[in-house]
Amino acid sequence: MLLARPVLVILLLLFTSVATAQDKPNIILVFLDNFGWGEPGFNGGGIIRGAPTPRLDQIADEGLRLTNFNVEVQCTPSRSALMTGRYAIRSGNGTVPLGEGVYGLVKWEVTMAEMLSDAGYATGMYGKWHLGRTSGRFPTDQGFDEWYGIPNSTDESVYSSLPGFSESGLSQTFVMEARKGESPRQVRPYDLDYRPVIDRDLTDRAISFMKRQAKTGNPFFIYLPYTATHFPAIPHPEFAGKSGKGVWGDMLMQIDSYVGDLLDTVDNLGIAENTIFIFTADNGPEALEAGGASMTGETALHGSAGPWRGTLFTGFEGALRVPFAVRWPGRIAPGTSSDEVVHVMDLFPTLAGITQGEVPDDRPIDGIDMSDFFLGKTTKSGRDGFVVYMGNEVFGVKWHDWKIHFKEQEAWSSVLRTYTMPKVYNLINDPRELDNVLFPHTWVLKAGLPQLEAHQASLQQYPPIRPGTPDPYEPPR
Amino acid sequence: MLLARPVLVILLLLFTSVATAQDKPNIILVFLDNFGWGEPGFNGGGIIRGAPTPRLDQIADEGLRLTNFNVEVQCTPSRSALMTGRYAIRSGNGTVPLGEGVYGLVKWEVTMAEMLSDAGYATGMYGKWHLGRTSGRFPTDQGFDEWYGIPNSTDESVYSSLPGFSESGLSQTFVMEARKGESPRQVRPYDLDYRPVIDRDLTDRAISFMKRQAKTGNPFFIYLPYTATHFPAIPHPEFAGKSGKGVWGDMLMQIDSYVGDLLDTVDNLGIAENTIFIFTADNGPEALEAGGASMTGETALHGSAGPWRGTLFTGFEGALRVPFAVRWPGRIAPGTSSDEVVHVMDLFPTLAGITQGEVPDDRPIDGIDMSDFFLGKTTKSGRDGFVVYMGNEVFGVKWHDWKIHFKEQEAWSSVLRTYTMPKVYNLINDPRELDNVLFPHTWVLKAGLPQLEAHQASLQQYPPIRPGTPDPYEPPR
Repeated sequence: MLLARPVLVILLLLFTSVATAQDKPNIILVFLDNFGWGEPGFNGGGIIRGAPTPRLDQIADEGLRLTNFNVEVQCTPSRSALMTGRYAIRSGNGTVPLGEGVYGLVKWEVTMAEMLSDAGYATGMYGKWHLGRTSGRFPTDQGFDEWYGIPNSTDESVYSSLPGFSESGLSQTFVMEARKGESPRQVRPYDLDYRPVIDRDLTDRAISFMKRQAKTGNPFFIYLPYTATHFPAIPHPEFAGKSGKGVWGDMLMQIDSYVGDLLDTVDNLGIAENTIFIFTADNGPEALEAGGASMTGETALHGSAGPWRGTLFTGFEGALRVPFAVRWPGRIAPGTSSDEVVHVMDLFPTLAGITQGEVPDDRPIDGIDMSDFFLGKTTKSGRDGFVVYMGNEVFGVKWHDWKIHFKEQEAWSSVLRTYTMPKVYNLINDPRELDNVLFPHTWVLKAGLPQLEAHQASLQQYPPIRPGTPDPYEPPR
Repeated sequence: MLLARPVLVILLLLFTSVATAQDKPNIILVFLDNFGWGEPGFNGGGIIRGAPTPRLDQIADEGLRLTNFNVEVQCTPSRSALMTGRYAIRSGNGTVPLGEGVYGLVKWEVTMAEMLSDAGYATGMYGKWHLGRTSGRFPTDQGFDEWYGIPNSTDESVYSSLPGFSESGLSQTFVMEARKGESPRQVRPYDLDYRPVIDRDLTDRAISFMKRQAKTGNPFFIYLPYTATHFPAIPHPEFAGKSGKGVWGDMLMQIDSYVGDLLDTVDNLGIAENTIFIFTADNGPEALEAGGASMTGETALHGSAGPWRGTLFTGFEGALRVPFAVRWPGRIAPGTSSDEVVHVMDLFPTLAGITQGEVPDDRPIDGIDMSDFFLGKTTKSGRDGFVVYMGNEVFGVKWHDWKIHFKEQEAWSSVLRTYTMPKVYNLINDPRELDNVLFPHTWVLKAGLPQLEAHQASLQQYPPIRPGTPDPYEPPR
């Protein structure tokens, strides 16, 4: 069949328009809470942790697995770095908030959601924020079109069932909901009744958003920070007892099933080849033996960092490395893996690189655009290492396969040890960071410390935002 | 075409004969030395240990991976248990030989090689024996048609280069070679010149045996106990520096490449579907920091047990669990894995079950025929647990996901700790065996200790062979 020239032109324009839309892939970012490197099957976990994780493993099988993907070692700083592409220290978010004051991201920060929103994305967030609990600091104030979830963290779900809390004058935590520009409304108390089931609701709302957005033909970004694996880890009734291996096995089944629901939706909507699907976590595993026992009947429930030493709130690899797998059929080669150093800060500029989003140029961005690395065009991530913070203190430096430690603590309740001479570890030979090999490897200091010096010079030039700074914030000239 | 009845009968007989031959699959057993659970990619190792292991991973991808495959925690006992299907304590092989006396398997023992030999197999062994170094105790005295390798262990390769040794009056260790019934001849000294290249020769000889045997149409058994990953781990010149990640990465590349050569040979000979290919190891990893440094220039070279605690010569999971993958295309489902408890002793009766081999009935056999489990006909291995020995002492009991510890030592050079009340660990919740949960789990003692009591009663009824017992040995009536 021959087509008249005008019809052909219109068709060509239509196809061109479709091609342009496809230049901006959808992004789904599943972000687990306190979920160690050793948990998923794709890192040697799965059945030894109580249940297979076929759907998590599928992401790695069909995409790229990063074995040296690093985060900040606490919840709030890691999420701050994810959202801004900057060291959390710069944003005043070096620690999780312990008191009741103002905390989180000032409005001046440009978040991943704002960047993607500006690039034409519909943005939905379902889950835990932990970057502000006061007016003007909610996700819908920071670039998300809609949000359903909790402002802070899941330990608060226990509060109302604890003796003493009701006399404290503190307010109960609520599950919240908002659309961009709205003041979030309190949906219901976040308590032990809702704690086991919240992640089901998060999944369903993400799926509903995906279905709505897929119809529009515009790209979408879903940020899904699940709560399930944070203390108290209590499985949904549908999964309680299902693994036959205890609470943790049930949790793994639940997570795997929910991620499977997301993958199935992507596939059924026919958008798999136009959707980047990322699975990762905020920091290493918990070591909450006593707490674990009291809430779930499990004794001595430890998360697993796999071969790495340490748990969350330490500077060891177990705190820093988390599981990471990303799938983008047709663009990221299936079944690939890399031990190159990558940091959660790199996701902002990398996703900006892929989506033609704009990275702010008026402030230091510590993340690196690794889009060529993610897409297999180079085998190098471009990152030599990074500064390891625990809270607002520099604990050390990672440089390729080496670590330099100035301070160490075994767990968050352990004594802080400060060394007058730094320790040096080789992570290939000694994944448990047991043997200081400063001698003969003093050269590692010469190779690794310049990045710390450069970082500290940058902090001098661009003074960090003080923790608790209220809005409006303007950087000093 | 119609065939006359006699011709048809002859053809049917021929096909029946072929079918019978195919009922006895070839068996290749690759057995690594001091190779931890966390080393291969299929258990989350590979690139984080210095190099990917695509050929090892291929075995798991195309077959069954066992995540709870257990061994004895030392070299000689583990090999004794492998060869006999019996606890090493029964055979007088509870420890590695430290002095110069007689040790190893008495002739009265029935080995896996004898069992398979009696079942019609050609049997070749290439590598480290460590079950006897005196006349009548070599592999070719114990069921192997041919052997090329070393009688004892690889630390002996260092001896002739150490100050003092030449004045000791001790004899240099030799690489040996023999055919069944022959007295082995000394091929060459086992020294630091030959140490890096021996595994290449073992591989080539195994391949040569395979090619010769494949032509005969009769089934063969190859036992390939590699030396490479035992102290001193020195890569073959072809692999030295190849990983760019140090000695251990080079070693992984070398092992992976040699195993790949074996797999390629199996495939090229067209015998893959008739060949059971097993990859495993004798015990958990070394912790030889100082030694590693002095021999290879590497500082603090630790093997990795993955998430598990402990190294060889301990009762912890890191000593007991080793990597295990088995491939048998068409008979074992690809990409399967199981955390069921399996012990190296089980291979003897399991392989007997598959090959219609004869398991001796005049002595206790502690292994279990798991052929139905290996072939996917049942999901249960049939083993509840086992007694954990360190040397000749009972350190504890494994029972399903639980451990009961009477004694512990952190590493082979650590102090032996004996407890008046046993410790109890849950391996799913607490893979690093950190938190004793005896309370509230005193029930685990009631469930797990009967197997120890039964084992000890059996030792009463069938007194163990004393270490160093000379031949001929006859059991007491």
